[in-house]
Amino acid sequence: MTATNTTTETTTEEILAKPLMQELVKQIRGQDSYGTYRTWSDELLLKPFIVSKERKRKISVDGDVDLVTKARIMAFYRAIAARIEQETGLLGQVIIDLSHEGFGWALVFCGRLLVVAKTLRDAQRFGFDSFEKLDAEGEKLLQKGIDLAKRYPEVGNI
Amino acid sequence: MTATNTTTETTTEEILAKPLMQELVKQIRGQDSYGTYRTWSDELLLKPFIVSKERKRKISVDGDVDLVTKARIMAFYRAIAARIEQETGLLGQVIIDLSHEGFGWALVFCGRLLVVAKTLRDAQRFGFDSFEKLDAEGEKLLQKGIDLAKRYPEVGNI
Repeated sequence: MTATNTTTETTTEEILAKPLMQELVKQIRGQDSYGTYRTWSDELLLKPFIVSKERKRKISVDGDVDLVTKARIMAFYRAIAARIEQETGLLGQVIIDLSHEGFGWALVFCGRLLVVAKTLRDAQRFGFDSFEKLDAEGEKLLQKGIDLAKRYPEVGNI
Repeated sequence: MTATNTTTETTTEEILAKPLMQELVKQIRGQDSYGTYRTWSDELLLKPFIVSKERKRKISVDGDVDLVTKARIMAFYRAIAARIEQETGLLGQVIIDLSHEGFGWALVFCGRLLVVAKTLRDAQRFGFDSFEKLDAEGEKLLQKGIDLAKRYPEVGNI
Protein backbone atom coordinates (compact mmCIF):
# COMPACT_ATOMS: atom_id res chain seq x y z
CA MET A 1 0.00 0.00 0.00
CA THR A 2 3.00 2.34 0.53
CA ALA A 3 4.32 4.20 -2.48
CA THR A 4 7.85 3.37 -3.49
CA ASN A 5 8.79 6.99 -4.02
CA THR A 6 8.54 9.96 -1.69
CA THR A 7 6.33 12.20 -3.84
CA THR A 8 2.80 13.03 -2.70
CA GLU A 9 1.24 11.42 -5.76
CA THR A 10 -1.61 9.07 -5.00
CA THR A 11 -1.16 5.57 -6.30
CA THR A 12 -3.90 3.80 -8.23
CA GLU A 13 -4.09 1.31 -5.38
CA GLU A 14 -4.79 4.10 -2.91
CA ILE A 15 -7.50 5.61 -5.10
CA LEU A 16 -9.20 2.28 -5.65
CA ALA A 17 -9.28 1.75 -1.89
CA LYS A 18 -11.40 4.88 -1.37
CA PRO A 19 -14.98 4.34 -0.17
CA LEU A 20 -16.70 5.53 -3.35
CA MET A 21 -14.48 3.41 -5.58
CA GLN A 22 -15.06 0.37 -3.38
CA GLU A 23 -18.79 1.02 -3.56
CA LEU A 24 -18.57 1.20 -7.35
CA VAL A 25 -16.71 -2.11 -7.39
CA LYS A 26 -19.43 -3.58 -5.19
CA GLN A 27 -22.15 -2.37 -7.57
CA ILE A 28 -20.49 -4.08 -10.51
CA ARG A 29 -19.71 -7.32 -8.68
CA GLY A 30 -23.30 -7.33 -7.45
CA GLN A 31 -24.57 -7.43 -11.01
CA ASP A 32 -22.18 -10.18 -12.00
CA SER A 33 -24.65 -13.08 -11.83
CA TYR A 34 -22.47 -15.38 -13.91
CA GLY A 35 -19.27 -14.78 -11.98
CA THR A 36 -17.47 -13.43 -15.04
CA TYR A 37 -15.53 -10.90 -12.95
CA ARG A 38 -14.77 -13.19 -10.03
CA THR A 39 -11.08 -13.41 -10.85
CA TRP A 40 -10.74 -9.80 -12.03
CA SER A 41 -8.90 -7.21 -9.95
CA ASP A 42 -10.74 -4.04 -8.95
CA GLU A 43 -8.52 -2.10 -11.29
CA LEU A 44 -9.47 -4.24 -14.28
CA LEU A 45 -13.13 -3.98 -13.28
CA LEU A 46 -13.10 -0.18 -13.21
CA LYS A 47 -10.89 0.27 -16.25
CA PRO A 48 -13.86 0.79 -18.63
CA PHE A 49 -14.74 3.94 -16.65
CA ILE A 50 -11.50 5.46 -17.88
CA VAL A 51 -11.88 6.87 -21.38
CA SER A 52 -9.18 9.16 -22.75
CA LYS A 53 -10.11 12.33 -24.62
CA GLU A 54 -8.68 10.78 -27.73
CA ARG A 55 -10.84 7.69 -27.45
CA LYS A 56 -13.90 9.80 -26.67
CA ARG A 57 -13.49 11.65 -29.93
CA LYS A 58 -13.66 8.34 -31.76
CA ILE A 59 -16.98 7.32 -30.19
CA SER A 60 -19.93 8.42 -32.32
CA VAL A 61 -22.67 10.40 -30.54
CA ASP A 62 -25.17 9.83 -33.33
CA GLY A 63 -26.89 6.67 -32.22
CA ASP A 64 -28.37 5.32 -29.03
CA VAL A 65 -26.31 4.94 -25.89
CA ASP A 66 -25.39 1.27 -25.82
CA LEU A 67 -26.55 -0.94 -22.94
CA VAL A 68 -23.06 -1.49 -21.52
CA THR A 69 -22.40 2.26 -21.29
CA LYS A 70 -25.84 2.80 -19.77
CA ALA A 71 -25.14 0.13 -17.17
CA ARG A 72 -21.86 1.86 -16.37
CA ILE A 73 -23.59 5.23 -15.86
CA MET A 74 -26.16 3.48 -13.67
CA ALA A 75 -23.44 1.82 -11.55
CA PHE A 76 -21.68 5.16 -11.04
CA TYR A 77 -24.82 6.91 -9.75
CA ARG A 78 -25.91 3.86 -7.73
CA ALA A 79 -22.55 3.93 -6.00
CA ILE A 80 -23.10 7.59 -5.15
CA ALA A 81 -26.61 6.80 -3.87
CA ALA A 82 -25.23 3.98 -1.71
CA ARG A 83 -22.59 6.29 -0.23
CA ILE A 84 -25.24 8.94 0.49
CA GLU A 85 -27.26 6.31 2.31
CA GLN A 86 -24.23 5.29 4.37
CA GLU A 87 -23.56 8.90 5.35
CA THR A 88 -27.11 10.15 5.93
CA GLY A 89 -29.33 7.09 6.36
CA LEU A 90 -31.51 8.26 3.46
CA LEU A 91 -32.34 5.63 0.86
CA GLY A 92 -32.03 7.00 -2.68
CA GLN A 93 -33.73 6.11 -5.95
CA VAL A 94 -31.58 6.36 -9.09
CA ILE A 95 -33.00 7.34 -12.46
CA ILE A 96 -31.00 7.61 -15.66
CA ASP A 97 -33.13 9.22 -18.33
CA LEU A 98 -31.47 9.27 -21.74
CA SER A 99 -32.85 10.34 -25.08
CA HIS A 100 -31.75 8.57 -28.23
CA GLU A 101 -29.21 11.32 -28.77
CA GLY A 102 -27.29 10.69 -25.56
CA PHE A 103 -28.80 13.69 -23.75
CA GLY A 104 -30.64 13.41 -20.50
CA TRP A 105 -30.55 13.38 -16.72
CA ALA A 106 -29.00 11.40 -13.93
CA LEU A 107 -31.10 11.78 -10.81
CA VAL A 108 -30.82 10.47 -7.27
CA PHE A 109 -33.68 11.32 -4.97
CA CYS A 110 -34.50 10.63 -1.35
CA GLY A 111 -38.12 11.32 -0.47
CA ARG A 112 -38.88 14.54 -2.32
CA LEU A 113 -35.29 15.78 -2.28
CA LEU A 114 -33.10 15.56 -5.38
CA VAL A 115 -29.69 14.94 -3.86
CA VAL A 116 -28.11 14.53 -7.29
CA ALA A 117 -29.42 16.16 -10.48
CA LYS A 118 -26.92 16.05 -13.30
CA THR A 119 -27.59 16.74 -16.95
CA LEU A 120 -25.93 14.25 -19.25
CA ARG A 121 -24.78 14.93 -22.77
CA ASP A 122 -22.91 12.79 -25.24
CA ALA A 123 -23.52 9.96 -22.80
CA GLN A 124 -22.15 7.56 -25.42
CA ARG A 125 -18.75 8.93 -24.34
CA PHE A 126 -19.28 8.49 -20.61
CA GLY A 127 -15.94 8.11 -18.89
CA PHE A 128 -13.17 9.86 -16.98
CA ASP A 129 -9.58 10.84 -17.71
CA SER A 130 -8.13 8.79 -14.87
CA PHE A 131 -9.06 6.88 -11.72
CA GLU A 132 -8.24 10.02 -9.80
CA LYS A 133 -10.76 12.01 -11.86
CA LEU A 134 -13.37 9.25 -11.55
CA ASP A 135 -13.14 9.40 -7.77
CA ALA A 136 -12.93 13.20 -7.65
CA GLU A 137 -15.98 13.77 -9.88
CA GLY A 138 -17.99 11.21 -7.95
CA GLU A 139 -16.93 12.70 -4.62
CA LYS A 140 -17.97 16.17 -5.75
CA LEU A 141 -21.49 14.96 -6.56
CA LEU A 142 -21.56 12.90 -3.39
CA GLN A 143 -20.52 15.74 -1.09
CA LYS A 144 -23.10 18.07 -2.60
CA GLY A 145 -25.73 15.38 -2.11
CA ILE A 146 -24.78 14.79 1.52
CA ASP A 147 -24.84 18.53 2.06
CA LEU A 148 -28.37 18.84 0.70
CA ALA A 149 -29.57 15.81 2.67
CA LYS A 150 -28.21 17.31 5.87
CA ARG A 151 -29.67 20.74 5.14
CA TYR A 152 -33.14 19.49 4.25
CA PRO A 153 -33.62 16.21 6.13
CA GLU A 154 -37.37 16.84 6.33
CA VAL A 155 -37.72 16.88 2.52
CA GLY A 156 -35.49 13.84 2.22
CA ASN A 157 -37.71 11.94 4.63
CA ILE A 158 -41.09 12.65 3.00
CA MET B 1 -72.77 26.30 -20.40
CA THR B 2 -75.90 25.81 -18.24
CA ALA B 3 -77.09 22.29 -17.65
CA THR B 4 -80.56 21.46 -18.92
CA ASN B 5 -81.47 19.67 -15.72
CA THR B 6 -81.37 20.84 -12.13
CA THR B 7 -79.04 18.20 -10.68
CA THR B 8 -75.61 19.17 -9.36
CA GLU B 9 -73.80 17.01 -11.90
CA THR B 10 -70.93 18.71 -13.65
CA THR B 11 -71.20 18.80 -17.40
CA THR B 12 -68.33 17.77 -19.65
CA GLU B 13 -68.19 21.34 -20.86
CA GLU B 14 -67.68 22.62 -17.33
CA ILE B 15 -64.94 20.10 -16.63
CA LEU B 16 -63.10 20.88 -19.85
CA ALA B 17 -63.15 24.57 -18.92
CA LYS B 18 -61.16 23.93 -15.74
CA PRO B 19 -57.63 25.36 -15.65
CA LEU B 20 -55.80 22.03 -15.66
CA MET B 21 -57.87 20.69 -18.57
CA GLN B 22 -57.30 23.89 -20.51
CA GLU B 23 -53.58 23.60 -19.84
CA LEU B 24 -53.64 20.01 -21.10
CA VAL B 25 -55.40 21.16 -24.27
CA LYS B 26 -52.74 23.83 -24.68
CA GLN B 27 -49.95 21.25 -24.32
CA ILE B 28 -51.43 19.13 -27.09
CA ARG B 29 -52.20 22.01 -29.43
CA GLY B 30 -48.68 23.30 -28.84
CA GLN B 31 -47.25 20.06 -30.22
CA ASP B 32 -49.52 20.11 -33.25
CA SER B 33 -47.00 21.44 -35.77
CA TYR B 34 -49.03 20.31 -38.77
CA GLY B 35 -52.32 21.80 -37.61
CA THR B 36 -54.03 18.41 -37.60
CA TYR B 37 -56.11 19.31 -34.54
CA ARG B 38 -56.94 22.86 -35.57
CA THR B 39 -60.59 22.08 -36.25
CA TRP B 40 -60.97 19.61 -33.37
CA SER B 41 -62.95 20.49 -30.26
CA ASP B 42 -61.25 20.27 -26.88
CA GLU B 43 -63.41 17.29 -26.05
CA LEU B 44 -62.27 15.36 -29.12
CA LEU B 45 -58.67 16.32 -28.34
CA LEU B 46 -58.81 14.95 -24.80
CA LYS B 47 -60.91 11.90 -25.62
CA PRO B 48 -57.85 9.58 -25.92
CA PHE B 49 -57.14 10.26 -22.22
CA ILE B 50 -60.37 8.46 -21.40
CA VAL B 51 -59.87 4.70 -21.40
CA SER B 52 -62.55 2.48 -19.92
CA LYS B 53 -61.65 -0.41 -17.64
CA GLU B 54 -62.89 -2.76 -20.31
CA ARG B 55 -60.66 -1.25 -22.97
CA LYS B 56 -57.71 -1.24 -20.58
CA ARG B 57 -58.03 -4.98 -20.12
CA LYS B 58 -57.68 -5.42 -23.86
CA ILE B 59 -54.40 -3.48 -24.07
CA SER B 60 -51.41 -5.76 -23.72
CA VAL B 61 -48.81 -4.80 -21.11
CA ASP B 62 -46.17 -7.09 -22.58
CA GLY B 63 -44.44 -4.82 -25.04
CA ASP B 64 -43.02 -1.32 -25.01
CA VAL B 65 -45.19 1.68 -24.27
CA ASP B 66 -46.02 3.09 -27.69
CA LEU B 67 -44.94 6.61 -28.60
CA VAL B 68 -48.46 8.05 -28.72
CA THR B 69 -49.22 6.83 -25.20
CA LYS B 70 -45.87 8.12 -23.99
CA ALA B 71 -46.62 11.53 -25.51
CA ARG B 72 -49.98 11.50 -23.73
CA ILE B 73 -48.36 10.77 -20.35
CA MET B 74 -45.84 13.53 -21.05
CA ALA B 75 -48.60 16.03 -21.89
CA PHE B 76 -50.48 15.20 -18.68
CA TYR B 77 -47.44 15.82 -16.45
CA ARG B 78 -46.35 18.85 -18.46
CA ALA B 79 -49.79 20.36 -17.88
CA ILE B 80 -49.38 19.76 -14.15
CA ALA B 81 -45.92 21.36 -14.26
CA ALA B 82 -47.32 24.39 -16.12
CA ARG B 83 -50.08 24.81 -13.53
CA ILE B 84 -47.54 24.56 -10.69
CA GLU B 85 -45.52 27.28 -12.37
CA GLN B 86 -48.61 29.49 -12.67
CA GLU B 87 -49.42 29.02 -8.98
CA THR B 88 -45.94 29.19 -7.48
CA GLY B 89 -43.67 30.80 -10.05
CA LEU B 90 -41.41 27.74 -9.96
CA LEU B 91 -40.38 26.34 -13.33
CA GLY B 92 -40.53 22.56 -13.42
CA GLN B 93 -38.69 19.92 -15.39
CA VAL B 94 -40.70 16.85 -16.42
CA ILE B 95 -39.17 13.40 -16.73
CA ILE B 96 -41.04 10.27 -17.75
CA ASP B 97 -38.84 7.25 -17.19
CA LEU B 98 -40.35 4.03 -18.47
CA SER B 99 -38.87 0.58 -18.69
CA HIS B 100 -39.78 -1.69 -21.57
CA GLU B 101 -42.38 -3.31 -19.34
CA GLY B 102 -44.41 -0.15 -18.78
CA PHE B 103 -43.06 0.43 -15.27
CA GLY B 104 -41.36 3.60 -14.22
CA TRP B 105 -41.61 7.10 -12.83
CA ALA B 106 -43.21 10.39 -13.69
CA LEU B 107 -41.26 13.19 -12.07
CA VAL B 108 -41.67 16.95 -11.96
CA PHE B 109 -38.92 18.84 -10.20
CA CYS B 110 -38.24 22.49 -9.44
CA GLY B 111 -34.70 23.15 -8.32
CA ARG B 112 -33.94 20.24 -6.01
CA LEU B 113 -37.56 19.70 -4.98
CA LEU B 114 -39.61 16.86 -6.46
CA VAL B 115 -43.06 18.40 -6.59
CA VAL B 116 -44.48 15.33 -8.33
CA ALA B 117 -43.08 11.80 -7.97
CA LYS B 118 -45.44 9.16 -9.22
CA THR B 119 -44.64 5.53 -9.92
CA LEU B 120 -46.13 4.29 -13.17
CA ARG B 121 -47.15 0.75 -13.92
CA ASP B 122 -48.86 -0.79 -16.92
CA ALA B 123 -48.28 2.57 -18.58
CA GLN B 124 -49.45 0.99 -21.84
CA ARG B 125 -52.94 1.37 -20.33
CA PHE B 126 -52.55 5.02 -19.29
CA GLY B 127 -55.96 6.65 -19.15
CA PHE B 128 -58.85 7.67 -16.91
CA ASP B 129 -62.44 6.52 -16.44
CA SER B 130 -63.95 9.88 -17.33
CA PHE B 131 -63.10 13.55 -17.87
CA GLU B 132 -64.08 14.11 -14.27
CA LYS B 133 -61.54 11.52 -13.09
CA LEU B 134 -58.88 12.94 -15.43
CA ASP B 135 -59.27 16.37 -13.88
CA ALA B 136 -59.59 15.04 -10.32
CA GLU B 137 -56.47 12.85 -10.51
CA GLY B 138 -54.47 15.67 -12.07
CA GLU B 139 -55.72 18.16 -9.49
CA LYS B 140 -54.71 15.83 -6.67
CA LEU B 141 -51.13 15.64 -7.95
CA LEU B 142 -51.15 19.37 -8.65
CA GLN B 143 -52.36 20.39 -5.20
CA LYS B 144 -49.79 18.19 -3.51
CA GLY B 145 -47.11 19.73 -5.71
CA ILE B 146 -48.20 23.29 -4.92
CA ASP B 147 -48.26 22.38 -1.24
CA LEU B 148 -44.70 21.11 -1.33
CA ALA B 149 -43.50 24.11 -3.35
CA LYS B 150 -45.02 26.47 -0.79
CA ARG B 151 -43.66 24.54 2.15
CA TYR B 152 -40.11 24.29 0.81
CA PRO B 153 -39.61 27.28 -1.51
CA GLU B 154 -35.89 27.34 -0.69
CA VAL B 155 -35.39 23.81 -2.07
CA GLY B 156 -37.50 24.63 -5.12
CA ASN B 157 -35.33 27.63 -5.87
CA ILE B 158 -31.91 25.95 -5.66
